[in-house]
Amino acid sequence: MTGTLYGVGVGPGDPDLLTIKAHRLISGAKVIAYPAPDDGESFARSIVTDVIPEGAEEIAIVIPMKPERFPAKSVYDQASGRVAERLEAGDDVVVLCEGDPFFYGSFMYLYERLAGDYPSEIVPGVSSIMSCAAALKRPLAARNDSLSVIPGPLPEDEIKRRLLAADAAAIIKVGRHLPKIRKVLDSIDATHRAGYIERASLPEQVVLPLAEAPETAPYFSMILVYMGAEEWIV
Amino acid sequence: MTGTLYGVGVGPGDPDLLTIKAHRLISGAKVIAYPAPDDGESFARSIVTDVIPEGAEEIAIVIPMKPERFPAKSVYDQASGRVAERLEAGDDVVVLCEGDPFFYGSFMYLYERLAGDYPSEIVPGVSSIMSCAAALKRPLAARNDSLSVIPGPLPEDEIKRRLLAADAAAIIKVGRHLPKIRKVLDSIDATHRAGYIERASLPEQVVLPLAEAPETAPYFSMILVYMGAEEWIV
Repeated sequence: MTGTLYGVGVGPGDPDLLTIKAHRLISGAKVIAYPAPDDGESFARSIVTDVIPEGAEEIAIVIPMKPERFPAKSVYDQASGRVAERLEAGDDVVVLCEGDPFFYGSFMYLYERLAGDYPSEIVPGVSSIMSCAAALKRPLAARNDSLSVIPGPLPEDEIKRRLLAADAAAIIKVGRHLPKIRKVLDSIDATHRAGYIERASLPEQVVLPLAEAPETAPYFSMILVYMGAEEWIV
Repeated sequence: MTGTLYGVGVGPGDPDLLTIKAHRLISGAKVIAYPAPDDGESFARSIVTDVIPEGAEEIAIVIPMKPERFPAKSVYDQASGRVAERLEAGDDVVVLCEGDPFFYGSFMYLYERLAGDYPSEIVPGVSSIMSCAAALKRPLAARNDSLSVIPGPLPEDEIKRRLLAADAAAIIKVGRHLPKIRKVLDSIDATHRAGYIERASLPEQVVLPLAEAPETAPYFSMILVYMGAEEWIV
């Protein structure tokens, strides 16, 4: 009997936004894997640090933060090899995923390597998009609104095209793309309809109208755009 | 001191997908409100039926299910009046919201009536979109994919335009709009790239390639479309 691969969403950051199922799986885990930067703490692990049982085996999947040097294939090949060893030995492996496992997560790189050979289960989590709307205290979508989720690294014209096909939008992975995103939003007269959120649900959360956002944004930041909004309220 | 209005996401249906924060707020609540149909059980309440404390005051917001007879304004005026009475008396009111409170939920109708006058807090929940992707066992979005959330009641040409501006899409509120949605997906050669999910995360969950989906869909159904998919895997 091989073990089961669990992709477990741990939510946007507040440990209280863990689901009961995630809490049970993590607190009972023998083997836990998670993405980690080459310098500093794993964000996913930091969310559940008080839940991980003493003595659990931990597999840190160390991912260099500079995208231009991203040796993704070999990192995930090695990590999936280590996870597969534990699964072969009959142990379940719980993989911690920031937010939701199947929503822009790195879990998919393990999943595509292992799901064909081992039983797997995905435990959905609270997405940072919902957490950002809660932080802004403004409903994200209602009735027949359509919502677009748009990655900030896309080219200007693509961001614009996708914004114009939606009633509301979540621009994710803002980081160093903030100046470009501001330019696009200005060009469609939407800056005053946009809110900026850093580190949603954490004590250091920042919530501002986009016009008052800082010049540089951290990786964990997002812009929500309400295309039909008449006025901005934070 | 007035009470606080809590909009609490209870997730897609599996009680284990409640967050720890939602569980704590509901299990300690003195007053609980939730949407309910005019005939039958409240879905939001059914998810947390084992969590609601004995003796809690319950305010059912009864919403007629036929959209053409929807007396929304008077229902929410009355309900917000009852909730406001409890808040004025100094009691917190926990409003149960299917999925996430600010993502296509009816909570916003209470929120827009009350948030100006009383303290409020939104507790985000697991969205059915993430739960559907988990059920399909297929990652919804990755890297620089953009995702569109598209309500099924929109006209054909609007659904098509929004699909064509995305790499993946979640078509929500499928119900009686299924034949129209099938037609649109056929017209852009995307039927074999779409999965159909009913009642995600519940024991009676149904997961099928769209081509094998039933003729009629219940209200709690969704279609996920992977525009770039070469082949379909369920």
